[in-house]
Amino acid sequence: MTYTTGIEESPSERHFLLVIPRVGEPAILAPTLAKRDLEAIWIDDVRLWDDDEDPVAVVDTVLEELTAATGRILVDDRLWATFLLELQSIRPEATFDRASTVFEGLRIRKDAVELETFRRAGALADRVSTAIRRRGPAVVGTTERELAGEIDQLLKAGGGIEPAFETIVAAGDHAGHPHHQPTDRKIAAGEPVVLDFGAFVAADHDTGHALYPGDQTRTIVFDGAPTETYQTVHDTVRRAQQAALNAVKPGVTAGEIDHVARSVIDEAGYSDAFVHRTGHGVGLEVHEPPYLVAGNERKLEAGMVFSVEPGIYLDSFGVRLEDLVVVTEDGCERLNQSPLTWQAG
Amino acid sequence: MTYTTGIEESPSERHFLLVIPRVGEPAILAPTLAKRDLEAIWIDDVRLWDDDEDPVAVVDTVLEELTAATGRILVDDRLWATFLLELQSIRPEATFDRASTVFEGLRIRKDAVELETFRRAGALADRVSTAIRRRGPAVVGTTERELAGEIDQLLKAGGGIEPAFETIVAAGDHAGHPHHQPTDRKIAAGEPVVLDFGAFVAADHDTGHALYPGDQTRTIVFDGAPTETYQTVHDTVRRAQQAALNAVKPGVTAGEIDHVARSVIDEAGYSDAFVHRTGHGVGLEVHEPPYLVAGNERKLEAGMVFSVEPGIYLDSFGVRLEDLVVVTEDGCERLNQSPLTWQAG
Repeated sequence: MTYTTGIEESPSERHFLLVIPRVGEPAILAPTLAKRDLEAIWIDDVRLWDDDEDPVAVVDTVLEELTAATGRILVDDRLWATFLLELQSIRPEATFDRASTVFEGLRIRKDAVELETFRRAGALADRVSTAIRRRGPAVVGTTERELAGEIDQLLKAGGGIEPAFETIVAAGDHAGHPHHQPTDRKIAAGEPVVLDFGAFVAADHDTGHALYPGDQTRTIVFDGAPTETYQTVHDTVRRAQQAALNAVKPGVTAGEIDHVARSVIDEAGYSDAFVHRTGHGVGLEVHEPPYLVAGNERKLEAGMVFSVEPGIYLDSFGVRLEDLVVVTEDGCERLNQSPLTWQAG
Repeated sequence: MTYTTGIEESPSERHFLLVIPRVGEPAILAPTLAKRDLEAIWIDDVRLWDDDEDPVAVVDTVLEELTAATGRILVDDRLWATFLLELQSIRPEATFDRASTVFEGLRIRKDAVELETFRRAGALADRVSTAIRRRGPAVVGTTERELAGEIDQLLKAGGGIEPAFETIVAAGDHAGHPHHQPTDRKIAAGEPVVLDFGAFVAADHDTGHALYPGDQTRTIVFDGAPTETYQTVHDTVRRAQQAALNAVKPGVTAGEIDHVARSVIDEAGYSDAFVHRTGHGVGLEVHEPPYLVAGNERKLEAGMVFSVEPGIYLDSFGVRLEDLVVVTEDGCERLNQSPLTWQAG
C-alpha cells in the first residue's frame, strides 16, 4: 500500500485495505477515521466504513466487484494473520499467495527518487556518526541509554522523521550480542562501543509521503587504548567489509558477497564469531530482499540497495561495521562516507 | 509469545516462533542472534537456527514432533501472512485459526500484576498531563510537534519505556481529525488543543519483561477564552464520558456503554460528529478486546481494562476526553485522575 499510494498507515485492528484488481481500477477500503489521510490519494474509489459497520461485509462487496471468486489473491507479506484467515474464510475457493511475488521485482530496484532519498538518509547518519565520534573522551561515563537518546535527538534535529529501528549502543562485552539493547551501563575508557543507527527520511514521490531508512554501524573506542586483540579484530572486520564491497557488481549472487566477507573472517580464525548474514536489502522496510546470505542465488542488479555489515562477536567485545550501498552498472556506490576507523576524536 | 514468556521481540523476517502443543512442553524456535534474549526464559526446549540454515526445515521438525499433521493450528492474530502461508503450505491437512480464540479469554481479564502496572502507567500520564496543563499561556507559540516532543520526553523521564503510540497534539481545526499527526503549526491563544498520549511501563511479572500502556486524552485551552460553542461541546463530551463511566459494571455489554455515551452526544445534537467507537480494551496491545462499539454483545467482567473516550469532531475544532478504567465487582476504578477541565494553569 505504501509503495503504490504513499499511505503510511500503522497496522491496526481496523480494516484498511488496498485492492488492486487484475484488470481495472484499484479501490481503497478504510475506516472513516482515516478519511483526511486519503484526501490527496490518486485512487478515486475510496470506500469508508464506520466503527459501527461490519467491515467484513464491505470487504466482501469490494472483492465481489473487483476480483474473481475462484482466482488468485495476493496479500501483503506482513498482513496480519487474522485478516488473511478472514479473507480465506470469505473466499474459500480462491488461492492465496504473497504480494511480494509481484512487488518484490519492482521494489528491489530503486528509482531515482528513492536513491536520492537514500543518499540523504546516508548523509544524515554520517553527520551524526561523525559528531558522536568527535566527542572523544567526553563520552566516557555516559550510559549506553543516554548515548542512544542523544543519537536519536541528533537524527531528528538533522531532518530524520524518526529512528529507523531501536538505536544500538553496546559497550564492551555487551557488543558481543549483535542486537543488544542499550542499558544504564556507563561507557568506560579503552572499551569498544558498537553504534548502529539510522533514521527514516521522507522521499519526494508524487504518489505521496514515503520513508526510507539510513542504517550504519561503527565501532569506536572513545578514550584510551584498546587491546591488541581488538585492533586485530577491527582490522579483520574492516578488511572483510572492503572485500565484500569490492565484489559487489551486477551479475554476482547475493550469496557470493556473503562468502567473500566470510572468507576474510574465516582466514583470520574467527569463523564461529561471525554469527549472522553479511547484509540485508533496504527500502520501505529496514530489512527486505536481497539478503546477503549463504545459498542465496539471487543475482545483484543495478539499483539494488543493501547493507554490507560483517561482524565478529566474542565474549568480551564485538565489532561490526555497516554501510549501505547501491549497486551500479559496474560496481557499487557507497551511501555512507563517515570514517570506519575505531579511533575517536 | 509475550503473554506467556515475556519475550518482547519485534516482528521480523527471521523465524521466531513459540510452539505450544496440545499436550506436553512448549518449544521456542529462534534465530541464533536472539540467543542471549532467551537465557532467562522458563522454556527448556529452545531451538536456534543460523542465518545460513533453512528455518522452514526447523519449523517442520518442531511441528512434526509437537503437533499432529491433521490437527488444528492456532496462530498469533498478528503473525505476518507470509509465515501463515508457509505453515499452511507445509501442513496442508491442518486447519488454521486465531490464537485469540484461546488467549483472548485469558488476556481480557487482567491479573493483579497487570493492574498494578496499569495504575503506574495511568499515574505517569496524569503527571505529564498536569505538568503540561500548568504551563498555561507559555504553551502558546509552541508548535504541535514541539509540544509532542516535550510530552514524549516527560513520559520517558518519568519512567516510561517509550510512548505507547504516536503522541497526538492537535490544535484548532486539526483536532477535527481524531488521529491527527503533529505538524509545525503553532498553538494560538483561545484555541482548544487535543492531547492524546501515554507510555509503556514495565510489569514485574515472573515470566519476564512485559509492557503495558497508558492512554489518556485531554482537550485544553492554554490561554484566552474559547468560544461558547466550544464550552458547550466540551461539557457535552464530559457528560457523555461520565455517563459511560457510571454505566460500567459487570454484566453490562460493551455495546451498551457505547450507547450510553452516544445518547448524551445525540441529545446535544452532535450525533454525526462522534465518528468513532467509545473505547477499546488495552493490555499488551494498545488496542485489543473488548471494543466499546455498537452491537458488541460481549458482557463486561471484573478485571477488564479499557478506554472510555467519547469525542465530537467539527470543522473548526474537536474535543475528546479519554481515561482508562478497570471493571470492578460493582462498577469501575478509574486509572487516570488528572483534571478533565479545559482550563489551563
